[in-house]
Parts: sequence; C-alpha cells; structure tokens
Amino acid sequence: MPLPDSSKLCVHTITTKPLPLETAIDAYRQIGINGITVWRQALEGRDPARTGHRIREAGLEIVSLCRGGFFPGPDQAARQVAIDDNLRAIDEAAELGAPLIVLVCGAVPGQPLVDSRQQIGDGIAAVLPHAAACGVKLGIEPLHPMYADSRSAINTMQQANDMCADLDSPYVGVVVDVYHLWWDPALETELQRCGQAGRIFAFHVCDWKTPTIDMLNDRGLMGKGCIPLAQIRSWVEAAGFDGFNEVEIFSDHHWARDQQTFLTEIKEAYLKYV
Amino acid sequence: MPLPDSSKLCVHTITTKPLPLETAIDAYRQIGINGITVWRQALEGRDPARTGHRIREAGLEIVSLCRGGFFPGPDQAARQVAIDDNLRAIDEAAELGAPLIVLVCGAVPGQPLVDSRQQIGDGIAAVLPHAAACGVKLGIEPLHPMYADSRSAINTMQQANDMCADLDSPYVGVVVDVYHLWWDPALETELQRCGQAGRIFAFHVCDWKTPTIDMLNDRGLMGKGCIPLAQIRSWVEAAGFDGFNEVEIFSDHHWARDQQTFLTEIKEAYLKYV
Repeated sequence: MPLPDSSKLCVHTITTKPLPLETAIDAYRQIGINGITVWRQALEGRDPARTGHRIREAGLEIVSLCRGGFFPGPDQAARQVAIDDNLRAIDEAAELGAPLIVLVCGAVPGQPLVDSRQQIGDGIAAVLPHAAACGVKLGIEPLHPMYADSRSAINTMQQANDMCADLDSPYVGVVVDVYHLWWDPALETELQRCGQAGRIFAFHVCDWKTPTIDMLNDRGLMGKGCIPLAQIRSWVEAAGFDGFNEVEIFSDHHWARDQQTFLTEIKEAYLKYV
Repeated sequence: MPLPDSSKLCVHTITTKPLPLETAIDAYRQIGINGITVWRQALEGRDPARTGHRIREAGLEIVSLCRGGFFPGPDQAARQVAIDDNLRAIDEAAELGAPLIVLVCGAVPGQPLVDSRQQIGDGIAAVLPHAAACGVKLGIEPLHPMYADSRSAINTMQQANDMCADLDSPYVGVVVDVYHLWWDPALETELQRCGQAGRIFAFHVCDWKTPTIDMLNDRGLMGKGCIPLAQIRSWVEAAGFDGFNEVEIFSDHHWARDQQTFLTEIKEAYLKYV
C-alpha cells in the first residue's frame, strides 16, 4: 500500500546538514513536513527548551534526539565519560521535549564484540533510571555490520531484541533503520518479535546505492537504490508500528546541493517509494 | 595456539596483483610459501594445464581457483551466460589441477535477495554435475553484508550452510573468509555445523582496518585491524579443518608497494597474528 500522504514524514536535521536549525524548521514546514528529529550538533549554542518551544510553535512534532550511545570504552573512566554524556543527552531530550533518544551503541576497535555488548548493556542500565524519571525512551539502533569495528557491536535486529529482553524496560526499544538492516534474512521475523513486545520505537528510511563510494556519507534518496522500502515498511506496520517514517540521509553529494530542492525531492521520493 | 611454522601458508595471486603469475610463483617459493590460489585473471593468455605443471614443478600446491559464481541475472539469458562461464571455470580448474573453485555467488541490485538466492541455488545445481565429473569442488563464500547489493546474496555462514544442505553434495561446501564473517555472533556455532557436515573447504585471512577508506580495496595485513584472527582460526580447526590458511588482501595501498617486501611482511604477520 503506497503512503496516502506525507502526514507521517519526518526529516532528520542531519539530512539537511548545511541548514542552521532555525532555517531547517522553516524549510520543513514550508514544504509540509510534520516531524523533525533533532541531531545534538544542530542544538549547539542553543537553549534546548526554547528550541523545542520554537519547533512546536512552527507546527512540527519532535520525533527524537540523535544521538546517544557509544558506551564501550577501554577502561572504566572512558565508559563513565560515555555514561555522563548520555545523562546529559537525556536532560537535553527532556528539555527539548523529545520523547526518544536514538542510541548508536558503540564499539572499540580490537575489543571483542561480546565485551562491547556487555559494556553497552551496562551503560544503558546505568542511565535507564534517569531516562525513566525524565520520561525519555532509549532506542537501540542496530548498525550495519560494516560499522561493527568502531560504531556499534549491535548489528542485527536479533541482537537488539535480545538486549531489550535482557534490560526489560518499557523505556528501552529498537530504532529500525533500513540502511543497516535491509540485507538480513531474519529481518521480518525479528521485526514481528520486536513489535509483539511493543518495542519498535522508530523507523528510519533512505536507500543503498550501487556503487556506494563512501561508507558513511553516500546514502541514497529513497528509490535510488536496492532497498525494498515498501516491503520493509509493511513489515514494520504489520508489527504494530504507526509512528513517523524518518528520512535520514548522510550524503556529501546531497549536502552540496540546494537544500530546498533536496527537500522537494525527499517529499516526492517519500510518497513514491517508501 | 600460535602457528608453529608457515607450512600451511597460501597466498592468493590477487594479493600480489602487480606481479605476473610467473613472477609470483618464483617470489612465493623464494620466501617459503607452500600454497597458491590462482585468480582467473592471472591465467589470462596462459595455458591452464602448462601453468599448473609449472606451479607444481616449483613446489607449490594449488589450493583453489578464484573465482566462479555471479549466478543471478535479470533474465534467463543472463543466467545462462553465468552458467556457461562457470562451466568454463570448472574446465580451467581441472586443467590447472585446482581441487576447488571459490564462488562469489552474485546479486542483482534491486532484485529481491530471496530471488537471487534461488537463482544461486539453481546455478550451482546446473554446473554441479560437470564439477563432480571433473573432480572439482565448489566453495560458496559468504560475503560481507556490505556486498549484498551487487556481489552476493549469501552473507552469513548460516545462509551458506543452508544452501549446502539444500544442494547436499560432497562437491559443495563453504569458503570461510574472516573479512566477511568476523562480526557475526553466530559464527562459531555455524562453523561447527559446517565442519560437522565436512563442508569447510577453505579458510581466508586478512584484517579489517579502522577506518576502512574503500569498501573493496582497503583490506589490512593481518594484525593491522580488529578481526580476532587466532580465535576464528581456532574455531575453524576445532570444526575439523586442517587445510591452508590463505592470505587474500585487496589493497590499493599494498599493491603500490614493493611486492617482495610485502610478501616478507605477510609471512611475518601470518606467524604472529593468524
């Protein structure tokens, strides 16, 4: 089923990285985008509470704050730095009025992935009481295995579901991003499992280009790659998710272009391919 | 347990791509390398039977021929082209005296991965009688999920094991490459499963660098990255594998260097880190 309209379209501020946050707010509204996910660097030098107010005044819904995580570290001191930073992110989210923080969980190159996963679990557990007290949910985002060296030791829905089951809190769930997960043969069944537990907290879309010339910043606009977007959205919705569809595109190519034109293309591609 | 010596060290001709095959043979022998895996492009313009004779005369064992596969295609004609090419590869392997062909199974961008896997299974089944008649084994190499768009729809040991179980032939097994598989939490158990079925046909090593600046040609020398090489080798050996440890490094950086120096470093890194 094609999307009937753009009412559930959300855009990440990183998608239009060249735009200052205030310009992005205006640009998103002008084009009829209803949701915004705010990246922490877009908040720099701004008061989160006033920024949140401004976003809501403009008629945009704040979907989440990106991003917390990066819990693993070579020693306890490094891991405490990460915990402290995540506590600050929870404060920022609460002030901003964001109901969710996206967690890129982290990994230390050369450290066994099982150790990193243990440290991720410990780190989330350490900040969870503060998140619950603030009413801010934490969304574990499984990252593509090509980021297992340094960005996340959680690389599949199954691993994210397992960690959520261990932590067993209504404040811990999963952020589903097609870019990271599209290739996984267990995706549909693990989405069902996640949905049954009420743990699909967010849904991110973009596309995987062939060829991909940069491992970080060459994501494609929806429809420009090989990801079965409509199929994965149907699985996510069948699992009970009814939130925003968030466009998160890191792209040196698109960042160098006119952002208003890019936003127009995003809306068209959203209606056609998501 | 560290490797006691370099008796099971094999090098892929692509690792020393700048060297013509004849130079590579001499260089490998000079440094005390016992095994060679021959890439088809290194055979170009040469008679496979005479080349095989020359390699054995030099005292090197031919471990495998790289590579067949790429079975999926948008239509039957394209898939038949792939089958015909794999039949030729089997002939080449038989003439060369290579007991194994490594299969990079293929994928068509935008085609559902389940369809590509069906076409891979059909393609292998189509060439299997000829492989068996020639005494040449076929090794399915699961590729990293970052290659799922265009190079292989088989991205985990589990998928390779499942396909081997379906095809159920002593001539079809798995090529284990640490670069593609190191991140997978199911790796150890799926290696055990593969070994119990007698299907670990080959073992490839290199390392995953942080950062990796090119998705294809920035593999690291063993010890220069995050892959737990000794641990994975211990799993492969515990599963019953006792063949060569094959060094397969695609690297623009190393290809630009003196290849004799590089081979010396390979041997040192092999004894220290594999």
